[in-house]
Amino acid sequence: MPVGTSAAVKTLTPHELREVGVEILLGNTYHILHHPGHETVERLGGLSQFMGWGGPTLTDSGGFQVFSLSATRKLTEEGAIFQSVYDGRTISLTPEDACKIQWSIGADIFYALDECPPYPAAKEDVASACALTVRWATRFLSTFITLCEKNGDDGRVPFLVVQGGLFDDLRKECAEQIAELDPPGFGIGGVSVGEPPDEMLRVTEICCNILPPEKPRHLLGVGTPKDLLGAVGKGVDLFDCVLPTRNGRNGQAFTSSGVLNLRLSKWKEMDRSLDDSCRCLTCQSFSKAYLHHLMNSGEMLGMRLLSLHNLAYYQRLLKEARNAILEDNYSSWQKETEQNWE
Amino acid sequence: MPVGTSAAVKTLTPHELREVGVEILLGNTYHILHHPGHETVERLGGLSQFMGWGGPTLTDSGGFQVFSLSATRKLTEEGAIFQSVYDGRTISLTPEDACKIQWSIGADIFYALDECPPYPAAKEDVASACALTVRWATRFLSTFITLCEKNGDDGRVPFLVVQGGLFDDLRKECAEQIAELDPPGFGIGGVSVGEPPDEMLRVTEICCNILPPEKPRHLLGVGTPKDLLGAVGKGVDLFDCVLPTRNGRNGQAFTSSGVLNLRLSKWKEMDRSLDDSCRCLTCQSFSKAYLHHLMNSGEMLGMRLLSLHNLAYYQRLLKEARNAILEDNYSSWQKETEQNWE
Repeated sequence: MPVGTSAAVKTLTPHELREVGVEILLGNTYHILHHPGHETVERLGGLSQFMGWGGPTLTDSGGFQVFSLSATRKLTEEGAIFQSVYDGRTISLTPEDACKIQWSIGADIFYALDECPPYPAAKEDVASACALTVRWATRFLSTFITLCEKNGDDGRVPFLVVQGGLFDDLRKECAEQIAELDPPGFGIGGVSVGEPPDEMLRVTEICCNILPPEKPRHLLGVGTPKDLLGAVGKGVDLFDCVLPTRNGRNGQAFTSSGVLNLRLSKWKEMDRSLDDSCRCLTCQSFSKAYLHHLMNSGEMLGMRLLSLHNLAYYQRLLKEARNAILEDNYSSWQKETEQNWE
Repeated sequence: MPVGTSAAVKTLTPHELREVGVEILLGNTYHILHHPGHETVERLGGLSQFMGWGGPTLTDSGGFQVFSLSATRKLTEEGAIFQSVYDGRTISLTPEDACKIQWSIGADIFYALDECPPYPAAKEDVASACALTVRWATRFLSTFITLCEKNGDDGRVPFLVVQGGLFDDLRKECAEQIAELDPPGFGIGGVSVGEPPDEMLRVTEICCNILPPEKPRHLLGVGTPKDLLGAVGKGVDLFDCVLPTRNGRNGQAFTSSGVLNLRLSKWKEMDRSLDDSCRCLTCQSFSKAYLHHLMNSGEMLGMRLLSLHNLAYYQRLLKEARNAILEDNYSSWQKETEQNWE
């Protein structure tokens, strides 16, 4: 899933996303809450209609941004109280609020509020975050059921988050407790917070071994192409990440032959596309020399064309991964793909 | 003509330009000279191919930017010597250089180097700028003929510039002298430098009354929709301007009912397109509320969508103007169009 932070995937239109194979977008509740506000989004028909997308959307709970963005925040049993990074006002976010806000935004998949501990964190802190996450998940689900009864069940689904940091036993315990609540899907959280990739994969595997295989697992906020292939191998089904768009805006292209930095002067007169095997507009219409020129001249068009290509690459990579799984060929496909990056 | 300052119309792809009816782009020689350099553009197949456009291009001489951008510059009979705003190096630009550089960039229409006096300017300064512009035009044309003999005449055409500021007699004299040189087309320069619109129209009319009616007249760097309709009424055929894209990036939309500022909070929940009569992607897919949100959130997508709409509006406006002329109905069409803006 491309990340549409503030109801927009940066620099790109929904039409372009669809053309490179995107099927679902992620929106950040924390940002939408501030701009333009969830009531406005609700009055304008919900996130998908508001942003001209028309397809499925997933929203996070806002919790991750409360922990990562807001310097001043307080956690109680009731919920999180934090100062907005936008206007400094004090906002309270409970598991019930998170559910109601996402309902009003109109997301198709939405997330329970969880406590995401930083990396590194002491084991006792992670254990208490797990316990709170489970209690909050229960309250979130109750609110969801109430909203369904009140508004009618229109097919939306709530996902719950597994925490546990890098502690194998905490991951196992938390995954069991969250699985017990039997939601339609799961997020594996507390990753992509600075931990080494190998550790991330280890705890991902622990979670995947416990979570029911017939239900989707979403590894929150991950990652590089290598991270994705590793996690798919462990049993992850869904990803969201800003890397393809953020790194694209910084001049980085993900290709079938590895990562390229388009700012480097070695591309100045390279009259070839980014990736010969890519069918996106960027690769079909523009040379590396032109993309280099755009990035070095500070032209937004360069950021846009690299973002588009990177999303096309990520979509294609995961499509190929899916095919390899269906052909019972995943490990050798993964190995070959990773070798081509070098 | 949209302005592709540094070999890119800011935020937009050539595909989008084509879709809103654009048939020819303008490139700024001064900027291309610095980034990526005219030799690089030449080695990569010329401006049109380099930027993935494939259609006709027009380049200016670079002279206007020498006067408007470079604080340190010196004018001699030979040419202009100036300090680059990019890297401070000293560059010399003669009429011969201007011709050779534009030839190497591969423009279809290209411009003689002229001296563009500031506004306001003393009559004697404008008179001497006119005289220098005519002498430079002669040298430019000689170089052009030499290049055609050397490289083959491949259908490129040189345009010459009329100067004369706001002095009617100087405009008349300069237009006569430039018309005498018999180029395929004409630029009316020294406008859009801060003068009142009525004065601009007055001297434009003087030029148009002298320049041969069967050859195209291009009013350089103009202007607002109202300026364009006024100038068309005086006999102008071609325009280039950054307004649709620059003002779009600042949140301004040109529409059939006038200019809108999308930053204003009155659009916050306005679930209607920018312009009901517009067929561009922006108007077909997004609401004013969403565009307001994008502009207020600093999303590049907003700059992009407004730039696209504004170019669509300018193209449509001039297409309608052409139709009105063909139907011998221009004055009443102009009056009605301008009334709708209010």
